[in-house]
Amino acid sequence: MTSVPILDDSVRIEQDAVLILDRRDFPHRVEWVTARSAAEVAEAIRAMVTQSSGPTYAACAALVLTARQVAAATPWTARSALDAAGERLISARPTNNSVRDAVTAVLARISELPEYADTARIIAVAEAAANARAREYRERSRSLAEHAVSLLPDGSRLLTHCWMDTYIIELVRAAERAGKQYSYVATETRPYLQGARLTAHTLAEMGQDVTLITDGMVAAVLSPHSTLGRIDALVTAADRVSMDGHVFNKVGTLGAAVAASAFSVPYYALIQAPDPQAPTAADVIVEERDGDEVLHTLSVRTASPLVTRGHYPAFDVTPPQFTTLIVTDRGPFQPAAVADYYQETR
Amino acid sequence: MTSVPILDDSVRIEQDAVLILDRRDFPHRVEWVTARSAAEVAEAIRAMVTQSSGPTYAACAALVLTARQVAAATPWTARSALDAAGERLISARPTNNSVRDAVTAVLARISELPEYADTARIIAVAEAAANARAREYRERSRSLAEHAVSLLPDGSRLLTHCWMDTYIIELVRAAERAGKQYSYVATETRPYLQGARLTAHTLAEMGQDVTLITDGMVAAVLSPHSTLGRIDALVTAADRVSMDGHVFNKVGTLGAAVAASAFSVPYYALIQAPDPQAPTAADVIVEERDGDEVLHTLSVRTASPLVTRGHYPAFDVTPPQFTTLIVTDRGPFQPAAVADYYQETR
Repeated sequence: MTSVPILDDSVRIEQDAVLILDRRDFPHRVEWVTARSAAEVAEAIRAMVTQSSGPTYAACAALVLTARQVAAATPWTARSALDAAGERLISARPTNNSVRDAVTAVLARISELPEYADTARIIAVAEAAANARAREYRERSRSLAEHAVSLLPDGSRLLTHCWMDTYIIELVRAAERAGKQYSYVATETRPYLQGARLTAHTLAEMGQDVTLITDGMVAAVLSPHSTLGRIDALVTAADRVSMDGHVFNKVGTLGAAVAASAFSVPYYALIQAPDPQAPTAADVIVEERDGDEVLHTLSVRTASPLVTRGHYPAFDVTPPQFTTLIVTDRGPFQPAAVADYYQETR
Repeated sequence: MTSVPILDDSVRIEQDAVLILDRRDFPHRVEWVTARSAAEVAEAIRAMVTQSSGPTYAACAALVLTARQVAAATPWTARSALDAAGERLISARPTNNSVRDAVTAVLARISELPEYADTARIIAVAEAAANARAREYRERSRSLAEHAVSLLPDGSRLLTHCWMDTYIIELVRAAERAGKQYSYVATETRPYLQGARLTAHTLAEMGQDVTLITDGMVAAVLSPHSTLGRIDALVTAADRVSMDGHVFNKVGTLGAAVAASAFSVPYYALIQAPDPQAPTAADVIVEERDGDEVLHTLSVRTASPLVTRGHYPAFDVTPPQFTTLIVTDRGPFQPAAVADYYQETR
């Protein structure tokens, strides 16, 4: 019996704005950022008001908002505004490809319209396509969660890193439907503490058993000397997977994957699909964020005042040999064979 | 040109007390805890007012204080008080063996005294032995630092974890004497942030180049995808090394060692000597501390209020295959051959 966690509904479309739950302080403060344009939504994504699955929902909502805002415009202006909005949303952050794919899919629906389509039709198609894409994101997450659950026996103790958002919410629900119960070990995930705040909070809201560790304890809990009991699998989301099987995810994933491999614990990376636009790892930009974040914890300076330099690669790159399976909405793939995703018939 | 960092002189003996710099808040607050008995020193060690090399200096100081406090007692009472003080100091924390070795060495000097020795003689021997042991700790640290520097070329970028205390202070000095300059990447070391507060602060005080990362970034900076530049070696202290070459050190060391091994970066673990009383890893107790610490950062609740359980193994165990060399005051040893330490002639 799970309640609906607050983070499962953290992007809302109002008449003239998109409301986005501010994850930077949640749950210590529950505040919503009001974005009155696609540009403001893009800025909220860049500033990490929302992350993980959040930007995809926010981008779809931003396109709905933009469509409504151009109701009185000419068809050409409406199309231009939607294109420009999409451009801004895509460029907010570089590593995760889900916003790009959602925006591209919505804009493709508009491009397919005949040249003479009027503004009302453009708007209707944009709204419908954006809403459909958000629903599809949910459905594909549900599907990959079901594939993950089929790999994870009842009673498994799962180690997770950062915040898997819709993926982990659907994982809990899929396990429940399958009559399975898991327990969770969550890393706190510095510097933003997404694990300590978002993952642990949401799992607790959903009635799941959760134990928090610091990021430095990952190898210790995976090792045979752990007093926490055997970890049955490392399970994380992936922000992007290249066609040659490299997993890009929140920094810390690589260390967890390498330790899991060293201690023979399987690592399952969850993503709806690998990115056909990234043939190799070299085709993905790893975002670097402000190193000052490392010197602070929830906006309070925690490092010595004498320290002037932090380093903050937001993601790391896990080579295929450290990942057991990449679990997609079409089922699990060996990392080296993840390109086969596009050869499957659904 | 290095100044004397404040942490290099963080235990002081006053007439009737031991003053211990409180590392739990340093450098955000510079406060000294006043311990008026060996029992209070032991409690300060248990509460992590001081750690790393600190407890050894504090234990030696506590024995000096105890000796002074029994000046008017009978010889039998003086000996009993010193034994009891030693017992309390040894039992404060279980994993590091340095306090045990220091206390045992001092008490052995007293045991060697003839039965008829008067209180004044007992006190004089205790004071001299305790002060000598503190000096010896420094000298042996200097020696192991020189051996480490001979392994590390000029210009090396070193990754370190937690706070190596006298070892790293002497490493910086030994490098300077050898005409070598290193740069440092320090982990913040949650939950107590010893890296962000103590290591980074002290390296900055000593004019060294230091970059701070979170604990989850260790594998990322060791991997070929790092944008920070090549890490030339992982260098940590060890709290204990068993005779079969297992390294016990601050939790997070294992993950760093496993990642270093995966990416062919050498890992050097520094300790004065392996522990002959620990033939195997199974002979060492890994301290577990209050899991509540994981839910807090510098006494502020940072995890979601819904989370009730943290897990805090204070140390982890690195098996010999992940350590390149164990660097002692008698030079470096292959981990599997570290027992040879006791077959060397000095």
